Amino acid sequence: MIGIFDSGVGGMTVARAIEQLCPDYPLIYFGDIARTPYGSKSPETIQRYAVNNTKFLVDQGAELIVIACNSAASTALPTLNDQFDLPILDVITPAVQQAVQVTKNGKIGIIGTRATIKSTIYEQGITARRPGSKVFSQPCPLLVPLVEEGWLGKRETKMILRRYLYPLRRRQIDTLVLGCTHYPLLKQLIAPRIGRRVQLIDSSIAVAHTLRTFLAGHADPAEKLYQPQAKSRFFVSDLTETAGQLAAHIFGRPITLEKVNV
Amino acid sequence: MIGIFDSGVGGMTVARAIEQLCPDYPLIYFGDIARTPYGSKSPETIQRYAVNNTKFLVDQGAELIVIACNSAASTALPTLNDQFDLPILDVITPAVQQAVQVTKNGKIGIIGTRATIKSTIYEQGITARRPGSKVFSQPCPLLVPLVEEGWLGKRETKMILRRYLYPLRRRQIDTLVLGCTHYPLLKQLIAPRIGRRVQLIDSSIAVAHTLRTFLAGHADPAEKLYQPQAKSRFFVSDLTETAGQLAAHIFGRPITLEKVNV
Repeated sequence: MIGIFDSGVGGMTVARAIEQLCPDYPLIYFGDIARTPYGSKSPETIQRYAVNNTKFLVDQGAELIVIACNSAASTALPTLNDQFDLPILDVITPAVQQAVQVTKNGKIGIIGTRATIKSTIYEQGITARRPGSKVFSQPCPLLVPLVEEGWLGKRETKMILRRYLYPLRRRQIDTLVLGCTHYPLLKQLIAPRIGRRVQLIDSSIAVAHTLRTFLAGHADPAEKLYQPQAKSRFFVSDLTETAGQLAAHIFGRPITLEKVNV
Repeated sequence: MIGIFDSGVGGMTVARAIEQLCPDYPLIYFGDIARTPYGSKSPETIQRYAVNNTKFLVDQGAELIVIACNSAASTALPTLNDQFDLPILDVITPAVQQAVQVTKNGKIGIIGTRATIKSTIYEQGITARRPGSKVFSQPCPLLVPLVEEGWLGKRETKMILRRYLYPLRRRQIDTLVLGCTHYPLLKQLIAPRIGRRVQLIDSSIAVAHTLRTFLAGHADPAEKLYQPQAKSRFFVSDLTETAGQLAAHIFGRPITLEKVNV
């Protein structure tokens, strides 16, 4: 099984993209709702949680890990690679690769949680692959609570987005990385406010493409992971009403969430 | 020492009120920043965290506990009373008492997190003490993130407050309980939007008054807790930048936060 974890339900945008691009590779999802959100916590705490989550997935039979949470990927990837001996894909590298491919003027914007932006991981990845690029970063800590409240069409959400995006717009970026798995749910609101000519990079879709390429190129573990009969399972560390609603909204169908104590 | 816990930094409004009303009774504060917020989590998870936090405070020498977090008080007080043999004050009962004293028309509004509002604990307390009262409740899940971002004067915060308060205003309440320890920081914005004639009940101040009365009436444990030479200590389960800033804002001076793993 492919193991995938996130700080909560937002990472289900990644799970959904994988389901669509790699339909015969079932998932074990873990959403750490009891300790959500990660994005405003310290790197040390996020690393501790990421190790816990990966252990849980490995115990459940995961043979490949996808870190669906940008905050965890930006702070805990080296720690996980040190401690676990299995392939680990993260949600950041694919988005970085796509951003440097599509930009024309080399001005790339990044939006994300405080933890992700503070790690400067997108900046490092982009300037390493395309020296001379200019990367402009904007932490957007209120977007996750707004999405989790389901305030997707509310006027306040639009105003807050405009406030967050204004500095990036002024810099005339031509590419914007949605550096948090909740943000694809705001794509329709972000596009007109950042400017229609700016390309949006959806990290959920980017990582699903990378996974498909990886599986095509690696018979081991791809053959073990290919289980067209098996069903994906979704575990959470806390069961809340809004979690079930958001999961159903992302998948377009009801999703059974199984509660576990980790 | 008086032990006091909260899901994060908001409960420091309680600690500050106690410091002002009971200055010779030092505190051990614990803010569970690594797992904040509690208000959107399930009762079961909140109870588990409340037991952990109380154990930590008892291990540090606490002989009386103040639950400064409304979400924890509304869901975990019976559990804590079962498991610990020491006096436990909560932030809800004093606010309920004050609300029924000051209301004239018996129409009382409550604002709080989802967990607090869903517990209906304020409603139960008020109607038990003043039968015939009408209680109107409004969950305000976005206020905690807005306060934690320091968006105290921003236009979006005012709009969101207006949206949350409008249904209560329509009901012509004459008393509004600020049922979350973060909300006193928004008092100046709430007052004009709910209407100047509505009395605001600040649960932080109410619980500090109750504590002072309790200490005056109970030589045991008051004599043990009276330690004019000792200093208060502030522990947190995660250290973040915004936590230190918010603590300093609440106390009006720098506060040393000590990180512990619980």
